[in-house]
Amino acid sequence: MSLLVVGSVAYDSVETPFGKRERTLGGSATFFSTAASYFTPVRLVAVVGRDFGSEHIEFLKTRGVDVQGLSIQREGDTFFWRGKYNFNLNDCQTLETKLNVFESFRPQIPENYKDSAYVFLANIDPELQLSVLKQVPHPKLTALDTMNFWIANKRPELLTTLAKVDMVLINDAEARALADEYNLVSAAKKILSYGPKYLVVKQGEYGALLFSASEVFRAPAFPLESVFDPTGAGDAFAGGLMGYIAQLGADARHVDFNELKKAVVAGSVVASFAVEQFSIDRFRTLKTEEIAQRFRLFHGLTHFDDVLPTVNRPAGL
Amino acid sequence: MSLLVVGSVAYDSVETPFGKRERTLGGSATFFSTAASYFTPVRLVAVVGRDFGSEHIEFLKTRGVDVQGLSIQREGDTFFWRGKYNFNLNDCQTLETKLNVFESFRPQIPENYKDSAYVFLANIDPELQLSVLKQVPHPKLTALDTMNFWIANKRPELLTTLAKVDMVLINDAEARALADEYNLVSAAKKILSYGPKYLVVKQGEYGALLFSASEVFRAPAFPLESVFDPTGAGDAFAGGLMGYIAQLGADARHVDFNELKKAVVAGSVVASFAVEQFSIDRFRTLKTEEIAQRFRLFHGLTHFDDVLPTVNRPAGL
Repeated sequence: MSLLVVGSVAYDSVETPFGKRERTLGGSATFFSTAASYFTPVRLVAVVGRDFGSEHIEFLKTRGVDVQGLSIQREGDTFFWRGKYNFNLNDCQTLETKLNVFESFRPQIPENYKDSAYVFLANIDPELQLSVLKQVPHPKLTALDTMNFWIANKRPELLTTLAKVDMVLINDAEARALADEYNLVSAAKKILSYGPKYLVVKQGEYGALLFSASEVFRAPAFPLESVFDPTGAGDAFAGGLMGYIAQLGADARHVDFNELKKAVVAGSVVASFAVEQFSIDRFRTLKTEEIAQRFRLFHGLTHFDDVLPTVNRPAGL
Repeated sequence: MSLLVVGSVAYDSVETPFGKRERTLGGSATFFSTAASYFTPVRLVAVVGRDFGSEHIEFLKTRGVDVQGLSIQREGDTFFWRGKYNFNLNDCQTLETKLNVFESFRPQIPENYKDSAYVFLANIDPELQLSVLKQVPHPKLTALDTMNFWIANKRPELLTTLAKVDMVLINDAEARALADEYNLVSAAKKILSYGPKYLVVKQGEYGALLFSASEVFRAPAFPLESVFDPTGAGDAFAGGLMGYIAQLGADARHVDFNELKKAVVAGSVVASFAVEQFSIDRFRTLKTEEIAQRFRLFHGLTHFDDVLPTVNRPAGL
């Protein structure tokens, strides 16, 4: 079913230990929509500038992404980011950020997007996230991402928006900052008390945790030998997760936790492909069959029998 | 079946954000043997000094640990370590180390331990580890732990010992240092090329990875709200893992990978209890039923159906 994403479309210049790419296609909404497109039709709301190449729009269209909501601003350039990863690919240094047309982004949801059943609010100002929610009156499930900048500088606005979504997807540092709790289990409880029914904590190479009020699930990340570029992995993860949920037609008010577990794994699977090449390049060739295949590999990676042999009692115990 | 551990028995003074304990029972062989005792009879080889309290020996006995190999050196004191954990419990600062009688430890395996089927060489000098292997002629499965100090300072000796064991259990930083590879999958392949059939990479709060030449498994750590003292978690993990293997009677030459997966989970389960209290205190009350119960919780924590619904193909793909 219809999945709406609101976020950034950008140019990224990225350097990793494996090479360098100038002005590749990037942005949270790009990674999200490309990843989600393997599961469900996606509607994109974002802004780009006069320098944005039409080949990127064509690419999104070939992935079945509806780009009617992609606004092209002729008076400015596209959001630009330059970053460099160190040898272990975990630490990333931002070398340059030019918000350009993204600075004045005020998401307008096209009339025929307003019936969207699923909404993902990528990491933008929580006030803008709230304005999107107001424009989509009857969603079945909504989710948002955020970052430390908003947690620190727009906390009241963020908490207002948080209370109105069904699911929060953030990384572990953000979860700790948002809850002001180091222990992740305690942090999760606190964040769920702010309103959302589900919290997904992204832990990069270690996988992700899914929390509800009464349950918890840990999805692995796939142990990869060929990680080329981690840029966009978190957004691709969110895209796979939300795409899976949208495909199911799940309703946040009565969703099966077992299906949410599989959604988290679907996100991990798609993210594991995203990092294998620069930018969204892996998705230029990725086939749906490969996703199903790696999903089964993930199952083998974590599955074990639930029967523990009778535990011994040493004499006297 | 009989499981031999050779390592340290120590006094630890530990400070965590949750409190302070002076001269509690510690040491790799202590945590290992206590944890393993829930699965199989354990034989302990270690050394303590004149200051070692008989109540600790009594405790080990109540856990069914054979302490015949615990040498009491009247001319010195027991290995002492003092450490302090910061607020997140991940970083630990060593404030004081006194090797005392441990400095001249030369493991002598008692005659009636020499038929041990399972051997765990805790983190000691790789030359001493090798001397133990020579004293136990027909083990079914042997494993060792090591640390960065030996990787850096006794690399040739360590590689010689490594080539003679079936399994290596180390943490991720050690795996990277040992293989001189950042990527863990590449590091694992390299370490397995040194000789051992299996590698277990401990990742603390994130769980553990098990590698064979052709398979990989990721076990979660249990998301705990009450982590009090991480000291000894890695050794308790190894104890649960090796205890499980010994209970099975598995032979390294033809062991079922599915059983090894469960052994890794058994290790994670026992480690998750170890951190709930200071020192080995949780094991003073832990019941075998609680282990079986948490094993089932771990299953729920990671299990998901292996069926992915048919993946959509957006129009035109």
